[in-house]
Amino acid sequence: MRVPKAIQKLTEAFEKLPGIGPKTAERLTFYLLHVPQVELDKFGEAVMELKRNTQVCSVCFNVGESDPCGMCADLTRDQAAICVVEQTLDIFAIEKSGGYKGLYHVLHGAISPLNNIGPDHLHIYDLLPRLQDGTIHELILATNPTMEGEATAMYIKKMVTDSRPIKNGLRITRIGRGLPMGGDIEYADAVTLTNAFLGRGEF
Amino acid sequence: MRVPKAIQKLTEAFEKLPGIGPKTAERLTFYLLHVPQVELDKFGEAVMELKRNTQVCSVCFNVGESDPCGMCADLTRDQAAICVVEQTLDIFAIEKSGGYKGLYHVLHGAISPLNNIGPDHLHIYDLLPRLQDGTIHELILATNPTMEGEATAMYIKKMVTDSRPIKNGLRITRIGRGLPMGGDIEYADAVTLTNAFLGRGEF
Repeated sequence: MRVPKAIQKLTEAFEKLPGIGPKTAERLTFYLLHVPQVELDKFGEAVMELKRNTQVCSVCFNVGESDPCGMCADLTRDQAAICVVEQTLDIFAIEKSGGYKGLYHVLHGAISPLNNIGPDHLHIYDLLPRLQDGTIHELILATNPTMEGEATAMYIKKMVTDSRPIKNGLRITRIGRGLPMGGDIEYADAVTLTNAFLGRGEF
Repeated sequence: MRVPKAIQKLTEAFEKLPGIGPKTAERLTFYLLHVPQVELDKFGEAVMELKRNTQVCSVCFNVGESDPCGMCADLTRDQAAICVVEQTLDIFAIEKSGGYKGLYHVLHGAISPLNNIGPDHLHIYDLLPRLQDGTIHELILATNPTMEGEATAMYIKKMVTDSRPIKNGLRITRIGRGLPMGGDIEYADAVTLTNAFLGRGEF
């Protein structure tokens, strides 16, 4: 039995998504066969309009509805701090936490030599012009606590400190690392525990 | 920070799919932001055209490109056997195995009182007219070996044997149950093992 072309097309489209294998792609496609056409139209339009109705901010490279984005245009935010993150999604997580009220800078990835991703592929060098005029007093490196994220943070630190004119009055910090809330010392890995001791504070 | 509407819409559409939670939906949406617009157009169209370019067969309720479907129209297939399956996907799996060359009947689900799915919601009664003229000599019940699948198979068996005129010369069988290939007796559950002993054959 030949698989109908319409089914094959959608299955192949699903398969290209990260974390979705051929079996899941099939399952999703056949699920959609039982969904009303109105819902399919909505879904299809949402896919096609995704990028047409979003813009990448030319200042911080966040994905928003305008350029500059809502974050950069919001003057009530702390204009003296920039938090560097790997992905736009990280901004949503940080904003939900409410622990930070400054500006952002989205790299759109992390340095990963194994995947052939170097600093040129990211918005790393776009960070320098933002530090030039001296209004920024703190640069918080909030890349992920992974090999790639740590390497990226170190690369950015070196790049910024090497560019002499902007060095003065700029604090470069890294988000705190240690045990996550609800974590268990017994099951924590060695690096996390080491970080937890290095990052200990007054109680 | 307000999530852009285009992102929110697509995330919500993904969330409605089975097995995709809010986190995965977000991840898929943000992945698609890095995909070229041509690919998004293809994906979106595939979703919208899925049901427009497929047809449910009025004989066996398989999903295909024509009515009657390719299976029902193929006269080289064994016209004396009907294999009853829950979903169209099951047909693909059976066809790949090459172990069966007859006709099919797709129920589009299984009886599940917990989910309020009764025989009326499925294509169970549509099976009777197909058995009426006496050309069918074997009815293979290939519903899943789950609670719902077993109940459905038992319901169909009772329904068919209760309708006297079609009883003669019709064999009703159930697909074999036992240990799957590559399975491990040590880790097999009690029901599977019991079935494996009940279904043992000459070696």
